[in-house]
Amino acid sequence: MSSNTTSASTIARYCDVRRLTDVLAEPLCAEDQTVQSMPDVSPTKWHRAHVTWFFEEFVLARAVPGHEPVHPVYRYLFNSYYDAVGDRHPRAARGLLSRPTVAEVGRYRGLVDRAMLDLLASDPPLELLAMVTLGLHHEQQHQELLLMDAKHVLSQGPLDTAYRPASPRPACRSEPLSWTAHPGGVVEVGDDGSGFAYDNERPRHRVLLEPFALADRTVTSGEWMAFIDDGGYRRPELWLSEGWATVREQGWIAPLYWRPDDDRWTLFTLSGRRFVDESEPVCHISYFEADAYARWAGARLPTEAEWEAVASSVPVDAAHLLDLDRLHPVPAGRGLAQIHGGVWEWTASPYTPYPGFTPEPGAVGEYNGKFMVNQQVLRGGSCVTPVGHLRPTYRNFFPAAARWVFAGLRLARDERS
Amino acid sequence: MSSNTTSASTIARYCDVRRLTDVLAEPLCAEDQTVQSMPDVSPTKWHRAHVTWFFEEFVLARAVPGHEPVHPVYRYLFNSYYDAVGDRHPRAARGLLSRPTVAEVGRYRGLVDRAMLDLLASDPPLELLAMVTLGLHHEQQHQELLLMDAKHVLSQGPLDTAYRPASPRPACRSEPLSWTAHPGGVVEVGDDGSGFAYDNERPRHRVLLEPFALADRTVTSGEWMAFIDDGGYRRPELWLSEGWATVREQGWIAPLYWRPDDDRWTLFTLSGRRFVDESEPVCHISYFEADAYARWAGARLPTEAEWEAVASSVPVDAAHLLDLDRLHPVPAGRGLAQIHGGVWEWTASPYTPYPGFTPEPGAVGEYNGKFMVNQQVLRGGSCVTPVGHLRPTYRNFFPAAARWVFAGLRLARDERS
Amino acid sequence: MSSNTTSASTIARYCDVRRLTDVLAEPLCAEDQTVQSMPDVSPTKWHRAHVTWFFEEFVLARAVPGHEPVHPVYRYLFNSYYDAVGDRHPRAARGLLSRPTVAEVGRYRGLVDRAMLDLLASDPPLELLAMVTLGLHHEQQHQELLLMDAKHVLSQGPLDTAYRPASPRPACRSEPLSWTAHPGGVVEVGDDGSGFAYDNERPRHRVLLEPFALADRTVTSGEWMAFIDDGGYRRPELWLSEGWATVREQGWIAPLYWRPDDDRWTLFTLSGRRFVDESEPVCHISYFEADAYARWAGARLPTEAEWEAVASSVPVDAAHLLDLDRLHPVPAGRGLAQIHGGVWEWTASPYTPYPGFTPEPGAVGEYNGKFMVNQQVLRGGSCVTPVGHLRPTYRNFFPAAARWVFAGLRLARDERS
Amino acid sequence: MSSNTTSASTIARYCDVRRLTDVLAEPLCAEDQTVQSMPDVSPTKWHRAHVTWFFEEFVLARAVPGHEPVHPVYRYLFNSYYDAVGDRHPRAARGLLSRPTVAEVGRYRGLVDRAMLDLLASDPPLELLAMVTLGLHHEQQHQELLLMDAKHVLSQGPLDTAYRPASPRPACRSEPLSWTAHPGGVVEVGDDGSGFAYDNERPRHRVLLEPFALADRTVTSGEWMAFIDDGGYRRPELWLSEGWATVREQGWIAPLYWRPDDDRWTLFTLSGRRFVDESEPVCHISYFEADAYARWAGARLPTEAEWEAVASSVPVDAAHLLDLDRLHPVPAGRGLAQIHGGVWEWTASPYTPYPGFTPEPGAVGEYNGKFMVNQQVLRGGSCVTPVGHLRPTYRNFFPAAARWVFAGLRLARDERS
Repeated sequence: MSSNTTSASTIARYCDVRRLTDVLAEPLCAEDQTVQSMPDVSPTKWHRAHVTWFFEEFVLARAVPGHEPVHPVYRYLFNSYYDAVGDRHPRAARGLLSRPTVAEVGRYRGLVDRAMLDLLASDPPLELLAMVTLGLHHEQQHQELLLMDAKHVLSQGPLDTAYRPASPRPACRSEPLSWTAHPGGVVEVGDDGSGFAYDNERPRHRVLLEPFALADRTVTSGEWMAFIDDGGYRRPELWLSEGWATVREQGWIAPLYWRPDDDRWTLFTLSGRRFVDESEPVCHISYFEADAYARWAGARLPTEAEWEAVASSVPVDAAHLLDLDRLHPVPAGRGLAQIHGGVWEWTASPYTPYPGFTPEPGAVGEYNGKFMVNQQVLRGGSCVTPVGHLRPTYRNFFPAAARWVFAGLRLARDERS
Repeated sequence: MSSNTTSASTIARYCDVRRLTDVLAEPLCAEDQTVQSMPDVSPTKWHRAHVTWFFEEFVLARAVPGHEPVHPVYRYLFNSYYDAVGDRHPRAARGLLSRPTVAEVGRYRGLVDRAMLDLLASDPPLELLAMVTLGLHHEQQHQELLLMDAKHVLSQGPLDTAYRPASPRPACRSEPLSWTAHPGGVVEVGDDGSGFAYDNERPRHRVLLEPFALADRTVTSGEWMAFIDDGGYRRPELWLSEGWATVREQGWIAPLYWRPDDDRWTLFTLSGRRFVDESEPVCHISYFEADAYARWAGARLPTEAEWEAVASSVPVDAAHLLDLDRLHPVPAGRGLAQIHGGVWEWTASPYTPYPGFTPEPGAVGEYNGKFMVNQQVLRGGSCVTPVGHLRPTYRNFFPAAARWVFAGLRLARDERS
Repeated sequence: MSSNTTSASTIARYCDVRRLTDVLAEPLCAEDQTVQSMPDVSPTKWHRAHVTWFFEEFVLARAVPGHEPVHPVYRYLFNSYYDAVGDRHPRAARGLLSRPTVAEVGRYRGLVDRAMLDLLASDPPLELLAMVTLGLHHEQQHQELLLMDAKHVLSQGPLDTAYRPASPRPACRSEPLSWTAHPGGVVEVGDDGSGFAYDNERPRHRVLLEPFALADRTVTSGEWMAFIDDGGYRRPELWLSEGWATVREQGWIAPLYWRPDDDRWTLFTLSGRRFVDESEPVCHISYFEADAYARWAGARLPTEAEWEAVASSVPVDAAHLLDLDRLHPVPAGRGLAQIHGGVWEWTASPYTPYPGFTPEPGAVGEYNGKFMVNQQVLRGGSCVTPVGHLRPTYRNFFPAAARWVFAGLRLARDERS
Repeated sequence: MSSNTTSASTIARYCDVRRLTDVLAEPLCAEDQTVQSMPDVSPTKWHRAHVTWFFEEFVLARAVPGHEPVHPVYRYLFNSYYDAVGDRHPRAARGLLSRPTVAEVGRYRGLVDRAMLDLLASDPPLELLAMVTLGLHHEQQHQELLLMDAKHVLSQGPLDTAYRPASPRPACRSEPLSWTAHPGGVVEVGDDGSGFAYDNERPRHRVLLEPFALADRTVTSGEWMAFIDDGGYRRPELWLSEGWATVREQGWIAPLYWRPDDDRWTLFTLSGRRFVDESEPVCHISYFEADAYARWAGARLPTEAEWEAVASSVPVDAAHLLDLDRLHPVPAGRGLAQIHGGVWEWTASPYTPYPGFTPEPGAVGEYNGKFMVNQQVLRGGSCVTPVGHLRPTYRNFFPAAARWVFAGLRLARDERS
């Protein structure tokens, strides 16, 4: 493939990805785009500016001779965590900034887009195109974060404002739990080089597995209610010690966004508050809760290698990824139909480097590697993961107490060999 | 005066006060109106809604049969601290709410205004007019808070955005320090019943004073620089113990909003950042700083009774109160010209009830009385106090560490009798 | 009086005061003397060393040429808050030090005593004797703190260990509430120079009082139970705003050391846990609670000037001060019999300098003056105040939330003039 | 082996282990035994009581009909974290308890020992002996904790008190760094059932390794100084993100207990403060520091499986384990001589369950399993690990920021296959 062709396809992809970010922000008013509802959350306008800064810092500033920064302080305000780039505004204080306004951020996006498109039209070297591709995956990742964060912002206070009105939900019900067995043995996991991947998916390497089985679908909300009814949130023996301490400190009695309403559970979705549907996957649980549920169910969570050994043979289907008419996971179909999409699935694997891992050179090497401690791996994407962003080797990661991720769990169990 | 006349004048005043709030909010975009930059600060839109709720809760809901609340949750969201009214949104979480939006708050204001004007047009009883008057003074108090808070919000981050462009400042210089002596003896202080006053200004009562003198003007920024240069922020012997602990914990080296720029001090004003003018009153200092300065200067702060004994004979002149073309204190003129307005003046007096104090009956009794511990009294109003709000008996109060008030200090000293 | 006589009486007093400290520490094992149960509390051994350091620092180091410090780090470890002396061990970390041991502290006391007695035998100047006298009052003050703190330490955990076994308590019952009226007018308060006093009791000055009445005894535990039963700890309208916030955060439902046991209240005393006696003064309440009770009772707290105007005519009677056989307040007798002793009485007065106040020169000027903000004055001494330490002009002070002081309240009310 | 023989050997081992605990506590005065210098630390007397409670709770209370608890509240005070046993005293408040005293804890130990020896003499069933054996390993584990904690307590304040006087240190120097290669492939790790092991070492299972090499000795203090001198604590690119945040928050500039003294580094040991010896292993570093050093050195930390694959062929030699005459790691000899003992070695492995892991039944199942999140595995024992406690499959674990463990690091690197 000539660089020229690549450049053309990059331009198309650049336009698509950048446009989607603005489409996602569109239902959010300036107030929504400004609030930071907890330190983990970033304001929408910050996301929109930060992904733009990524292109300015890692592409324009390096490739365009004499590039003048759009604004001298944006490098400080919109750097997320790149120590190699320099000082930055404290993460927990992102919501204290009313300026730049949403409109100014929009102008920033426009100015960078114009410069980027000029640059892309100039037949740039492949190395630069690779950085642009990284920037687009980066922006897609922030598209999911933007929706997670906006949901959290809209859930504050008693108003339960919807991001988008609800579309009719599918009437299908969940399947009874069935299992896919795997014989174990030496398998290969990780990026095979056939397409884009983050550095943390490399190198592809061998793993020895014992025989196991993986559930065909994730745990449903109905099953979760049985866990609650059986005292799931009141029995310390089901929990990791740190998980139990968190349950007590935070007063957890159900997944995030669930609230009792007389005898029934309601949940807040991006389409507002409604009753919990027993057939849909449980969503917005922490690793601690996933782990406790698995123990209660007499099963366990899969490792990420087990998960990938099974999932790598199932093609990623856009049907369960981001769709603006459906911003909540739907009941899984037959078999492993929803192993990609729906909800992120907590695995038993702490987030560690693959054997032989080497971060990308330069500041973008901070993208993944420096977070490899005290995080758990999630696999499989969710209903708010943008189409085109996911692959079976994709490794997501969050701290064990995080609940604002669109995350659920899939059970695993040992098989006799 | 007939109730009819009073009602007419109340209508006029109602319209004026309500309009000013919107004028003050006008330069602030939706983002500015949403941010809460510290727990003491409230978002602009919250102020605008809260003062409106005050009328809905304490006037409409009580006087209009069958009054339907504009929104069922506003009573929860916009109650500030009235326990008698019920539960409320936590103060420190006001900035987590993107909804209701600024526009929705505007509609809320409009709906309440219409109902209020209908009610006022109906020749209501004097008791109701008194409550409306209280509500208008309450709103004026929040107008000053709105400006204090907006300034703090705009000061976040590196952008130093101006609320309004700067107007030319007067070229006058500060006068040398001169003193007004008072012979002491028994004086009367507190509300004499000739106009509106808060309950905390009552009852008027006698106080025994020893002979003293009061400085004719407040301390200037130039004098404050001398204090800094003499190690004012580095010498524990000048400070109250709790003040010194605060200096070290917060890293104070100058008043709030001051920042060194090479060899000179700059300060952030509502018209942006500029160099400090040595002639203007020092502003945005805490009680701890005022007290330390007075000790350094070999003087002391006046008590509130001493202050009132002198100030009550000086009429309140609107010239040094809120004026949108001048949102920072200017150099004082001759004599006690600026004893009302300019900067609030920290006094040596803790905020306590006057002998025989009785709070207003009902929920509005929570307005003042329940804060009478661990606060210091400030006197004299400031350049952001609305015209018509101030009187010589007015008692403002803040915790000793507060710095975002437009506050300075006026020295006092003992005189031989 | 010749210096020689004074010196002799100072020696006698020095020996008495120093011995009492050791007598008070004697029932406390090394473990008890080491623990710091909250930042406000100091370990017994720290008290014992700190009062010794006071003599070493302010007397020996200044008066004895070539005095070698007993240990080079004691100046750092046992300085409480004297900035003029230098850096010091952080207050909240006093309980982290196992060394020096209790025995080593005992040796430190012995070495300083020997040097002090040598010095006192050398006919020192009056100025030095005055500093020794200050040191002895300082040590007496710490004797009371030592008992307050030891009680708090022993109350930790479920064991309720007694400091000393209980002696039989008097069978007397409390009197019905009666009042002593005062006509108001100009009174003089503060140190009249007839004996030792702290700098904060000076200068004696005039105060103008309105007519008032003071209760003849403090509020009893039985009366306090009526307050509890009437929802005292559940009704926000009775409380200062900061007091109510504290009630909720700390979960207060009764005075410190009270605990429900089935249908009755028990309390922990220095003689262990027993049932509350309705006749004895309520003890271990905060200013917030005292203030709320007074409001509930339709009365108020006296100002410190009102209190002194009445109490100065009642001689201090050792009967209600520190007595090792009685470490809890007993029911008051007739009239104002227990206005000195029993429990410290919270006043309505914030702790402020008297008009014309000047701190002592030098480092001991930090003794009182620098705490004159955000504290309330208590008057009257308690059952753990050492005999010889109290006088009617004595001003004690603590923050409004403090409860481990032996403090109760005496009601006051306005009288018609 | 008959139960009788086992019982006899258990009695002997019981006496030895219990006696060692008292020997270790002996140099610590009552004050030392009472202080809790940080929440992670427990007071010595608490350790001594807790290990005794373990026998009372899990052996006596279950095996001795009608066993009366020695004290009714000890079950509450000395339960560490067993939720199945019931409520317990908060961990961070262990240092607030002066009672029971050290002497009372000694009596508690004696009473339990008598009952245990009676029980052991009665030819108890093997299941009970297994629980006693677990209790003895538990006590040995606390012996190491006791020394770690006592060191931290003695390091508080400026006195640097020694636990025991220093013995002459060996004059040997560290060897140049050499490496032991391993060809990789499928290896077996975990308990092979030949002796006592904790549940977390089971089941033995297969792991696939790539070729690697392991350093023959741990990193020395001299090498660590080179890391410091090269800006190790000032260069964010060397650190995990959470590690770098910790460096800045805690102000780390060197290992725990190191302090600069003019141009040289001193360190605090259980024998007091002395200069750092360049030849001895670096000790008292966190996982974050170990990881940063490895990155700086162009190497990495080994996984626990890699470590065990090499170390399992080296017999555990008591020479580098707990010896009261040598309470600090000494320079390693040739080859892998000190792979067992000296310092615990941080591995790259988060602490997770082995495939097929099942906790022990009952409350002792809380011993290990519930901590399997957000901890890193350490291997190899240390100079304060009791003889008889260690085996090559032993898995120790601590949070990544912990520094008061006697922990260092051994480098690993990938080898070409």
